[in-house]
Amino acid sequence: QDISDTSFGKGMINFVAKDSSFSLKFAPRFQMRSITSWDYVSDQYGSANHNLLIRRARLKFDGFAYSPKLKYKLQLGLSNRDIAGANDYNRNSPRYILDAVIMWNFAKDWELWAGQTKLPGNLDQLVSSGNMQFVERSLLNSRFNLGRDMGIQLHHKTKLGDTFLMREKVAISQGEGRNVTSGNEGGLQYTGRLEFLPMGEFKSKGEYFQSDLKREEQPKLMLAFTYNYNQDAVRTQNSAGSYMIRTDGSLYETDITSIFADAMFKYKGFSFMGEYVKRTAANPMAREANGISPTGDVVLIGDAINFQAGYLFINNYEVALRFTDVNHDDITYLLPTTEYTLGVNKFIVGHKLKVQSDLSYRTLDGNDDNISFRLGFDIHF
Amino acid sequence: QDISDTSFGKGMINFVAKDSSFSLKFAPRFQMRSITSWDYVSDQYGSANHNLLIRRARLKFDGFAYSPKLKYKLQLGLSNRDIAGANDYNRNSPRYILDAVIMWNFAKDWELWAGQTKLPGNLDQLVSSGNMQFVERSLLNSRFNLGRDMGIQLHHKTKLGDTFLMREKVAISQGEGRNVTSGNEGGLQYTGRLEFLPMGEFKSKGEYFQSDLKREEQPKLMLAFTYNYNQDAVRTQNSAGSYMIRTDGSLYETDITSIFADAMFKYKGFSFMGEYVKRTAANPMAREANGISPTGDVVLIGDAINFQAGYLFINNYEVALRFTDVNHDDITYLLPTTEYTLGVNKFIVGHKLKVQSDLSYRTLDGNDDNISFRLGFDIHF
Amino acid sequence: QDISDTSFGKGMINFVAKDSSFSLKFAPRFQMRSITSWDYVSDQYGSANHNLLIRRARLKFDGFAYSPKLKYKLQLGLSNRDIAGANDYNRNSPRYILDAVIMWNFAKDWELWAGQTKLPGNLDQLVSSGNMQFVERSLLNSRFNLGRDMGIQLHHKTKLGDTFLMREKVAISQGEGRNVTSGNEGGLQYTGRLEFLPMGEFKSKGEYFQSDLKREEQPKLMLAFTYNYNQDAVRTQNSAGSYMIRTDGSLYETDITSIFADAMFKYKGFSFMGEYVKRTAANPMAREANGISPTGDVVLIGDAINFQAGYLFINNYEVALRFTDVNHDDITYLLPTTEYTLGVNKFIVGHKLKVQSDLSYRTLDGNDDNISFRLGFDIHF
Repeated sequence: QDISDTSFGKGMINFVAKDSSFSLKFAPRFQMRSITSWDYVSDQYGSANHNLLIRRARLKFDGFAYSPKLKYKLQLGLSNRDIAGANDYNRNSPRYILDAVIMWNFAKDWELWAGQTKLPGNLDQLVSSGNMQFVERSLLNSRFNLGRDMGIQLHHKTKLGDTFLMREKVAISQGEGRNVTSGNEGGLQYTGRLEFLPMGEFKSKGEYFQSDLKREEQPKLMLAFTYNYNQDAVRTQNSAGSYMIRTDGSLYETDITSIFADAMFKYKGFSFMGEYVKRTAANPMAREANGISPTGDVVLIGDAINFQAGYLFINNYEVALRFTDVNHDDITYLLPTTEYTLGVNKFIVGHKLKVQSDLSYRTLDGNDDNISFRLGFDIHF
Repeated sequence: QDISDTSFGKGMINFVAKDSSFSLKFAPRFQMRSITSWDYVSDQYGSANHNLLIRRARLKFDGFAYSPKLKYKLQLGLSNRDIAGANDYNRNSPRYILDAVIMWNFAKDWELWAGQTKLPGNLDQLVSSGNMQFVERSLLNSRFNLGRDMGIQLHHKTKLGDTFLMREKVAISQGEGRNVTSGNEGGLQYTGRLEFLPMGEFKSKGEYFQSDLKREEQPKLMLAFTYNYNQDAVRTQNSAGSYMIRTDGSLYETDITSIFADAMFKYKGFSFMGEYVKRTAANPMAREANGISPTGDVVLIGDAINFQAGYLFINNYEVALRFTDVNHDDITYLLPTTEYTLGVNKFIVGHKLKVQSDLSYRTLDGNDDNISFRLGFDIHF
Repeated sequence: QDISDTSFGKGMINFVAKDSSFSLKFAPRFQMRSITSWDYVSDQYGSANHNLLIRRARLKFDGFAYSPKLKYKLQLGLSNRDIAGANDYNRNSPRYILDAVIMWNFAKDWELWAGQTKLPGNLDQLVSSGNMQFVERSLLNSRFNLGRDMGIQLHHKTKLGDTFLMREKVAISQGEGRNVTSGNEGGLQYTGRLEFLPMGEFKSKGEYFQSDLKREEQPKLMLAFTYNYNQDAVRTQNSAGSYMIRTDGSLYETDITSIFADAMFKYKGFSFMGEYVKRTAANPMAREANGISPTGDVVLIGDAINFQAGYLFINNYEVALRFTDVNHDDITYLLPTTEYTLGVNKFIVGHKLKVQSDLSYRTLDGNDDNISFRLGFDIHF
């Protein structure tokens, strides 16, 4: 097997060692973005704001090591957006590592994961940022996703019939997100996700990429439910957001619960994804050690829905629509936000080489808030 | 094509996929520097200051993707000097990405570039830091170069005769430099560069590396002119230097114009490079929102010249001389600086493996200021 | 030679160019750690603290360039623990580069090293963090090691008899540790290390990895002595620790001397490593420019011993014990610390794929202080 036995989009370097002692797929990717947006202020839309940036730039190594039953994944972020987030809990250092995880297929249909990677949360988040239908994920996701964490996960799959497949995923993790070096604060975080695929598996794991690029010949559906319980959580957005630091330096702790329901459906170029989330907290308002005075931090509780659907034409152009509605509890002082997005995509080599554009209209508490146009270019070896 | 089909200096990994769907050249390089310098204070040279450092350490990926008409370049900086520059406009994160750009040859003689890379500015800057004649670029360059920016560029070339070649390059970019994540401040930046090669192309793109390593058999010349207009610029050195922040948090904006003229000449081991630059600003003194009180920041306007020449002996030793003269406007309170540098280089494998040394004598407003001796070692796979 | 001619643990990519102009071994590795610890407070052990983290994640490139006599090594750290340490002396940037060094075999038995890498200090430090017998190095090492520095090293080896081998290593370096960009502070640092191998070389350079994985058939021993003199040192732990900054912004300087003696012995699965260190300083208490008022900083002078031994069973399980005793001088206000560690390791593919666990009991000035249990997983391509 020589080095040129690979193709664009299948890994820049991709091989299995001659003695089958390991395999490697190495793939860099980067995403360029242009964003033009208009804020609505004083009864009119203001002048355009421009933003050109390398939104993501990543190096991914994956494969198996020693045995095909032991898989690994190491993903590094390179762009300033990828690595931002230095704080006192990660030695005030950039967060280069996205994933560093091993996956051990210790018995048929079972996998044990250990390390840092995405929790089995909502579907929009589980879809790689390289496989999105719109230029960016929805507001539901940015406000409520579970993100990455350090811990262990147990994955299992069960055949419920000839084609009906069920997958069960549970995770125990630190609860404060990725790249933490200072150890666990408060309690641990527990996640469970149940996936039902009544019509069998999607082509090429299509339940985990958006847009029906494989043009499923039979209708395919995944329905899934996620439950997450973060005991004695210390950050305002579960394992992201501000740390709720009291004036005495200690951390306010409260139990946060998130539930998600999501669905993916694909058929002959048509794709639909829907998500619902609700986050609650035992005592959302952070208080000082005396238990009375508010610290000013509040757990961002609330709920949201997101629906999106697209149709892929035979020339690999796609038109897609998205509707997102986010409602936070009054205690957060965040106004209800609704967003409508129209996307037009051209897939040159599937998600590996594509040009995307979308136009979003956003309201805040029912009033005009923002219009933005985004153009995105993805290259993924 | 197997992995060992490459040579030192031609990429650590270098191949075209068997199906011609992409190519990759991966090349790490690093530069070690030793600097000993003596400052002139109180009528004499003081004791020596030492500085040993990894000046640059970089990983470069380039090649084509999907089609030979679509080229990409991704370059990462690794050394502390490479990645420094965290600020509020890049999420207080290190600036890991140097280049992330795609280059699309959409029609004969035309290329469209998109992403982050060097602007078509002055020649000394356009020459890669791995291909320099002296241990470091000139003072002209460090004070006036246009650097890297996010945006688009359009490149074209025109045959003006049998050998006479002209290249035209224009760019529109954000104007605040590389790795900005916070969007555009002030206005955009516009750059145009015109290159004339009356005697035809240099060997191996020799107009873009210093020293006549290819020993041109015919005299070769490039003359070029660059015009740059940064509308409502917000930094003191065009797209580098301090942000001109007012006490109310807003940014002072003024139009900055830079013009460059440069030339490269090579013939039988002899090489010459000359550069002239002039930077002006509509209102160089930054003022508070009231338009009257100075903020203390000043656009570093002024002009400079740099001449350098070298001769490469048959044993691949080179002796080179450089003269640089920098004059800033009085408003900047920077004194005129003149620098004379004598360099001696040994090219073991061209610019890929070399030892360089240079000795510089610098005056400030005509008075003794500094003597420094630098030793550099470059390795470039 | 094609890309798949390598095996797990022998480099993810490993080849010599067809024209023998260079070679490359590229190896990523990462270490996951779980730490559970109980502090002794108020006459009892408190509740457990948990810490899950990616302790190290590294990319290493090494081989030869241009000639087999010129070797290079470039090692990058990726984890937040690896890159932490931004300060005013390294442009407030993460310390991404661990090693960037060239090694020139300029004459038989001689090597000249230049760049940034580990100084020839104590053995526990010289053993790669990928080849340790316990989950982490000893307290002796964390308090007293010489670490990495920028400079040059000269290595030589001498045959003293049929099997008796001696190695001599000397280094001159900046003295403030790795990734410094601001130049040398105070004086330089001088290191000498002498290694004696009376019974000849260990298998596979076994004196530089812990645990007797090669099961030496003949007893093998290395005895070594290191002397280090850091002239006008400015940090509290020689080339690590706090910079001793005075209120006037200048740095307090004093001469620091470290001596080390260490030994490695291996025979038929049994391994022993012992180390002794003593650090002294001319004037350990940092004082203000007036030479009288203490600044609050103190050079962490003192001495320490560390002994560890293990036995590797035929099934590649190992049981190991470690005893460490650290005594700082009274001036440091650090209490004597003693640590007893019991380790159990399972080597799946030697040090390349292993699971390690250890249980430590620590006393402070003879009183109960801490119990901790660590679990480590290493994967090294």
